[in-house]
Amino acid sequence: MSAHFRKLALIGIGLIGSSIALAARRQGLVDVIAIATRRQETLDEARDLKLGDIYTLDAAEAVRGADLVILCAPVGAYDALARIIGPVLEPGAIISDVGSVKEHVVKVVAPHLPKTVYFIPGHPIAGTEHSGPSAGFAELFAGRWCVLTPGADVPADKTEKLAAFWRAMGSKVESMDAAHHDMVLAITSHIPHLVAYNIVGTVADLETATQSEVIKFSASGFRDFTRIAASDPVMWRDVFLTNRDAVLEMLGRFLEDLSVLQRAVRTGDGASLEAMFTRTRAIRRSIIDAGQETTAPDFGRPHE
Amino acid sequence: MSAHFRKLALIGIGLIGSSIALAARRQGLVDVIAIATRRQETLDEARDLKLGDIYTLDAAEAVRGADLVILCAPVGAYDALARIIGPVLEPGAIISDVGSVKEHVVKVVAPHLPKTVYFIPGHPIAGTEHSGPSAGFAELFAGRWCVLTPGADVPADKTEKLAAFWRAMGSKVESMDAAHHDMVLAITSHIPHLVAYNIVGTVADLETATQSEVIKFSASGFRDFTRIAASDPVMWRDVFLTNRDAVLEMLGRFLEDLSVLQRAVRTGDGASLEAMFTRTRAIRRSIIDAGQETTAPDFGRPHE
Ligand SMILES: NC(=O)c1ccc[n+]([C@@H]2O[C@H](COP(=O)([O-])OP(=O)(O)OC[C@H]3O[C@@H](n4cnc5c(N)ncnc54)[C@H](OP(=O)(O)O)[C@@H]3O)[C@@H](O)[C@H]2O)c1
Ligand SMILES: NC(=O)c1ccc[n+]([C@@H]2O[C@H](COP(=O)([O-])OP(=O)(O)OC[C@H]3O[C@@H](n4cnc5c(N)ncnc54)[C@H](OP(=O)(O)O)[C@@H]3O)[C@@H](O)[C@H]2O)c1
Repeated sequence: MSAHFRKLALIGIGLIGSSIALAARRQGLVDVIAIATRRQETLDEARDLKLGDIYTLDAAEAVRGADLVILCAPVGAYDALARIIGPVLEPGAIISDVGSVKEHVVKVVAPHLPKTVYFIPGHPIAGTEHSGPSAGFAELFAGRWCVLTPGADVPADKTEKLAAFWRAMGSKVESMDAAHHDMVLAITSHIPHLVAYNIVGTVADLETATQSEVIKFSASGFRDFTRIAASDPVMWRDVFLTNRDAVLEMLGRFLEDLSVLQRAVRTGDGASLEAMFTRTRAIRRSIIDAGQETTAPDFGRPHE
Repeated sequence: MSAHFRKLALIGIGLIGSSIALAARRQGLVDVIAIATRRQETLDEARDLKLGDIYTLDAAEAVRGADLVILCAPVGAYDALARIIGPVLEPGAIISDVGSVKEHVVKVVAPHLPKTVYFIPGHPIAGTEHSGPSAGFAELFAGRWCVLTPGADVPADKTEKLAAFWRAMGSKVESMDAAHHDMVLAITSHIPHLVAYNIVGTVADLETATQSEVIKFSASGFRDFTRIAASDPVMWRDVFLTNRDAVLEMLGRFLEDLSVLQRAVRTGDGASLEAMFTRTRAIRRSIIDAGQETTAPDFGRPHE
């Protein structure tokens, strides 16, 4: 199946959009890349970085004639964007996105799309804590998974064409139901981010003297959490606004488990603590074996 | 102040003990290194790695004639070790340790030490998720802090001599009260570890199919938590058994804050979520500015 498209329109050109632009160009997957974004400043930055061929503040202009459109803006902007692009989409085009939630995306985007296009929501499971057009790099998706959640009405060859596009950028591709995606990502990504933001927030509330000690001594654990709590606040606001039920369900399980640990600490139950701390090692081993993590200690952080 | 000691005795030779052995030797800080550990297997490994000069299963033999003794075993072993070494310590020797908690260490070790030695508990704020003699490396302490918590009766020049030893291994040194150390480390290190163990435990309870998806998609956040949840279970059991009050106090604050976030998610309060996710960025910036973290995205993890 050919992974090639004539014209790719990227709506939003931050970390993910710019990484797609760079990877698609490097692999020769598209002839023309059109880039639309909200702010002139970001558009200028994208142009300076030579990320595309067409630059515009008008999403409708970007998608005109495109056979692949990928929404790469925060999910909260999708509704408005879908209303703008819906009327001008090229018949036969594949419309996709990269949003971190999927059921909500179907709900707000699908109603505005014509019946002549194929809507295949997507989510590349790859990222860093950095944002904006200059944060992207062509290798971002290498070895990482991309989840596609096509509706039942999408012909298999259309999904396969989009999958081939992602594989050509280095991804492994898996299709699943949007609701299932949201549940798995709630525990894999959304709860870790919520907890990380929360603990960094707890520290932000400490008196200044103590806070400066926490910063000094952060190599003892805390700094790992600050990385994911440095991700874009608007993107994460949108994730929690749009995946509420799955997040609250998984947060409930997390809190139940934490109560058990809390009680073990309070009662000095060393045997239970050791047992709970032991069974978690196998999971890290599996992640390394699955090629999703480096084996280097401390993530391979530099030690002078 | 000279950082030099004649004979260094390391009781316990895992990640921290072996790193001290390598760093002290490389910097020429000691003439002789005596190593004691519990298991023959570990002792053999230390010998194969050429970490010291004297190898023994008898802690008393190791400390005989030593002018610097550092306990590098899990904190739960300290009481028994102090009883063994107390009677044979060299008058004038400095006795220290590397345990992650400090008030408890004073409580269980001090009573067994003769009045002729100087007890200066210590905690190098450096580590990786790996354990055992082969996990150590000489650069582990470079640029990291080491906290010393000398009692009021210890002469300043003794503390300064131990501080010089740590500085010569690349550490920055700070002295503080043991109780204050335990409170700061509870939020900086112990709660992050508890929360990480907890979330990995929540995943371990998911059905197998979902768990394998969490592993595949772990690059979206979860894998960062699995690193610290891969640390030694016995060491962490001991931390939570011996720093209970500070841990429960900080866990209480963490849970209060999490209730606020949970409510914001439940009520769809986007403004509060965005505000909470924004103020945490400054803390990561401070950690990078303090030289305690790499500026590379994703901890500098390799991307193929
Ligand atoms: N970051 C990750 O780790 C990650 C991973 C997987 C998926 N995702 C998903 O990828 C999407 C983008 O994330 P990102 O990390 O690339 O974010 P980012 O670096 O912050 O970039 C967001 C882009 O969207 C544009 N944008 C914002 N509001 C817009 C609007 N109303 N109309 C048009 N463009 C708008 C921004 O442009 P302006 O500067 O012009 O506003 C910017 O170009 C999100 O949906 C997120 O859920 C992110
Ligand atoms: N890991 C970190 O990130 C870190 C950071 C700062 C401080 N610390 C502190 O450093 C200490 C050691 O941690 P680590 O990471 O180096 O642990 P580790 O790699 O697991 O090594 C522990 C060492 O202690 C020995 N040991 C265990 N029980 C003993 C006993 N009853 N008597 C004598 N030796 C015994 C072990 O030897 P056997 O194999 O012979 O049992 C092993 O050599 C702990 O107190 C911890 O709180 C750790």
